[in-house]
Amino acid sequence: MNTAYQSLTERFQRLSRINHAISYLNWDQMVMMPPKGVSSRAEAIAELAGMYHETLTAPEVADLIAEAGQDLSPDDEVGLREMRRVWRQETCLPAELVKAKIVAGSRCEHGWRTQREADDWDGFLKNFTEVVELGREEATLRQQHDDRFATPYDALLDLHCTGDSKELIDTVFGELRGVLPGLLVEVVEKQLRAAKRRGGDGGSGSVVYDLAEQKKLNEKLMGLLGFDFESGRLDVSLHPFSMGGAGDLRITTRFRDTEFLEALLATAHETGHASYEGGLPEKWADVPVGQHRNMCIHESQSLLFEKQIFLSRSFMSYFASEIQASFPDNRANSDQLWSMATQVEPGFIRVEADEVTYPLHVLLRYEIESSLINGEIEARDIPQLWNTKMKDYLGLDVGNKHSIGCMQDIHWTDGAFGYFPSYTLGAVNASQIFKSLKSDCSDWQERFGKGDISFVRDWLQEKIWSRASFASSQDLIKETTGSGTSAEFYIEHLKARYLEELY
Amino acid sequence: MNTAYQSLTERFQRLSRINHAISYLNWDQMVMMPPKGVSSRAEAIAELAGMYHETLTAPEVADLIAEAGQDLSPDDEVGLREMRRVWRQETCLPAELVKAKIVAGSRCEHGWRTQREADDWDGFLKNFTEVVELGREEATLRQQHDDRFATPYDALLDLHCTGDSKELIDTVFGELRGVLPGLLVEVVEKQLRAAKRRGGDGGSGSVVYDLAEQKKLNEKLMGLLGFDFESGRLDVSLHPFSMGGAGDLRITTRFRDTEFLEALLATAHETGHASYEGGLPEKWADVPVGQHRNMCIHESQSLLFEKQIFLSRSFMSYFASEIQASFPDNRANSDQLWSMATQVEPGFIRVEADEVTYPLHVLLRYEIESSLINGEIEARDIPQLWNTKMKDYLGLDVGNKHSIGCMQDIHWTDGAFGYFPSYTLGAVNASQIFKSLKSDCSDWQERFGKGDISFVRDWLQEKIWSRASFASSQDLIKETTGSGTSAEFYIEHLKARYLEELY
Repeated sequence: MNTAYQSLTERFQRLSRINHAISYLNWDQMVMMPPKGVSSRAEAIAELAGMYHETLTAPEVADLIAEAGQDLSPDDEVGLREMRRVWRQETCLPAELVKAKIVAGSRCEHGWRTQREADDWDGFLKNFTEVVELGREEATLRQQHDDRFATPYDALLDLHCTGDSKELIDTVFGELRGVLPGLLVEVVEKQLRAAKRRGGDGGSGSVVYDLAEQKKLNEKLMGLLGFDFESGRLDVSLHPFSMGGAGDLRITTRFRDTEFLEALLATAHETGHASYEGGLPEKWADVPVGQHRNMCIHESQSLLFEKQIFLSRSFMSYFASEIQASFPDNRANSDQLWSMATQVEPGFIRVEADEVTYPLHVLLRYEIESSLINGEIEARDIPQLWNTKMKDYLGLDVGNKHSIGCMQDIHWTDGAFGYFPSYTLGAVNASQIFKSLKSDCSDWQERFGKGDISFVRDWLQEKIWSRASFASSQDLIKETTGSGTSAEFYIEHLKARYLEELY
Repeated sequence: MNTAYQSLTERFQRLSRINHAISYLNWDQMVMMPPKGVSSRAEAIAELAGMYHETLTAPEVADLIAEAGQDLSPDDEVGLREMRRVWRQETCLPAELVKAKIVAGSRCEHGWRTQREADDWDGFLKNFTEVVELGREEATLRQQHDDRFATPYDALLDLHCTGDSKELIDTVFGELRGVLPGLLVEVVEKQLRAAKRRGGDGGSGSVVYDLAEQKKLNEKLMGLLGFDFESGRLDVSLHPFSMGGAGDLRITTRFRDTEFLEALLATAHETGHASYEGGLPEKWADVPVGQHRNMCIHESQSLLFEKQIFLSRSFMSYFASEIQASFPDNRANSDQLWSMATQVEPGFIRVEADEVTYPLHVLLRYEIESSLINGEIEARDIPQLWNTKMKDYLGLDVGNKHSIGCMQDIHWTDGAFGYFPSYTLGAVNASQIFKSLKSDCSDWQERFGKGDISFVRDWLQEKIWSRASFASSQDLIKETTGSGTSAEFYIEHLKARYLEELY
């Protein structure tokens, strides 16, 4: 290791520790902080973000990166590649643009919190137009700094789906667009017929599910999924999330006292995210190559835990007894619980969508945001486009209810264009990875039926978690599953689960 | 305001935000963090502390401080004085000494955690000798940088009792040393006679006090003491503490299910600390002059809330009904609760000591640590000195039980010499300030009896909290009470409460 590379490593360690501080202060803000702490916390986090930026963009870093390429081991060569990537992302925007983005984004997001409830698109548009302008400026600059990007939007996409090209995503999404609307009709009709045959489901609307007992049940689930409470904790927040690294993984969920499935699904999902972070190689914990590969892989791990493990008939058949032990008044048996949790129904809201409709919500957003950033449409065109696509894909009429239409998500309000696709790439990856796992572990259903998923963790640890950012996203998927990300696996999964009810 | 002063202000704002991060990460570590998070947290905090040090000791700060004295408003002149003081404290030690102190201190503290339980003085001494050496080195350097200090120990004292001289402390402690041992005998005899007259106290050893209910009761107490839960929270930790600033004050306590008074006393104490921090002037929140004056004032506020308010007969007469509402099985009435909470008894452990014996514990430590730092005794002499003084002051024989003798406290293990005196200076200040308050608010007992202490907060806000570090500690006490810190007020308070049972 040469001295320039050594210096870079030390600098990235400092960056990693600043990030540690920012991350746990954010967690505290979401989970613990009293309301009036907000302004001093915002100042502290902004200061740390400024120090992060100064540390990463200091003039000597460019020199170190130029010098560091000599006599490196193969691992360190990849280490340098990832340092360079992170450094480029941070340096290619002028400081004024970064600041302007933060100001415009937080103004727009702040306004959105009340405008959304009032369906006030015109009010929102006033702030949002500037966010779009700055997003386009950012995208154009990022595109100019990297010749891999055919359009400005590609450059934003790469911030989240790092290494997964627009071309790949277009192919995957094109196939889903062709199949899902028809499949959706089939599934809904099938489930309607089944519901008529069955009569009412076993659930009971009048049972109250104690929140403390629900928390224990969710912790039980986390334990079964391999979560170590010496290295992490479960709390409650407005929206479920997961953060932190090995040794200190924090996940949150939210409870309702009228039902328990939603919290369990969120907990399984966040446990998947946390497991990936916890499984990243300790040796590289403080440098970019040791971080998660991209959000398409991250989301594949959370969805694998949520949809492929927790929502499988076999795991549910085991876990139903835990539910019964916590809530003896619950009258749904394992099959009924599974039917409730796999109900498919077109709806307006993305975060409430099921496996069949979710990709359609993402497709719609992807099509709109890419045209928007590339200047093919303007912000004012969004509501009409949104409503047309909702009608086409999901058969639903939004009308002027923008709160359940184009104003429902937080992502665009502060300029996070290019994030949405990772949800669906993650879902496709999850089904593809899980298919490969099943062929390696043919007794998976038997083991799930005993509440044992440890073999899944071992397998993922070897194939995905330990690899961190050493390979590209597509190489990782190819090496794990035999081919790059492909929609066919997801469609196959949906048919097997929702038409044939196989697992 | 000149540009140099403006630059300094901005630099101290950055320092304040780094401190914010360190403080809340520390809180998280004490209250929330899972056990395996400890090493990454330690690295992050050490990194931030390094960045704090770099930011404060950068060469340009010396120039700015030299230039900033021109054309300042009176407030800014004091602001600059306090910036200079903080800067000097940070710059007068070489970086190697600071590092060596941290390494030796954490080694000694770590060893102490097991050596203490084993009464292993010899094992402890091996590590502690280096801590003492480094403490002497630090003290000597600090003394050389400031001609106010007659001995090296004075310089360490000033880190905690800022502005309260060794001379003043010697006078106060001399008077306490003369009076307290005799007063202690008198009080103990009086309480013994009373106990015999009374028969058993009203408490019941067999009642179990539910912890969740205790938490609610403690929050009720905090509310009565003026704590705003929109601006702070109560949690549980191994040792009670308080931290944070206006808008986000965090206090902790600890509960036992066999009794409830200890937690309430700790909660009242920490609420006093938090109230001072919360009452500091917002305008100066980010610069040194806006911080608490010193630990002798800080401790006066916590002890005023704990001993002068919560432990007063009149407030207790009100709060007994709250206790009764929470714990109907508790059989002690208001008078009995007050008797239990004001029980005086010589004991080995400082943190369990009452108002009469506590200063004797501090005196003993003060005498030993000042001789130690000034080279008049060596570390190996401590056990014998400790035991002799315990016998003289409290009539107790420690023997070889160092765990309840000279190894009981954490302070010395990592070199925090000069801290102990602030506990007793604080107690003296509290009684002195409270006497002045009583003469301004003659109906205080009537108001306390209704659970109203808002007038105390208003009075302290004006006299103490809003003053931050503008005046010296002794000027603050003089302006508030008419004279500098004097033991007579504390002795008067002890006699009135423990011999005459007046309040």
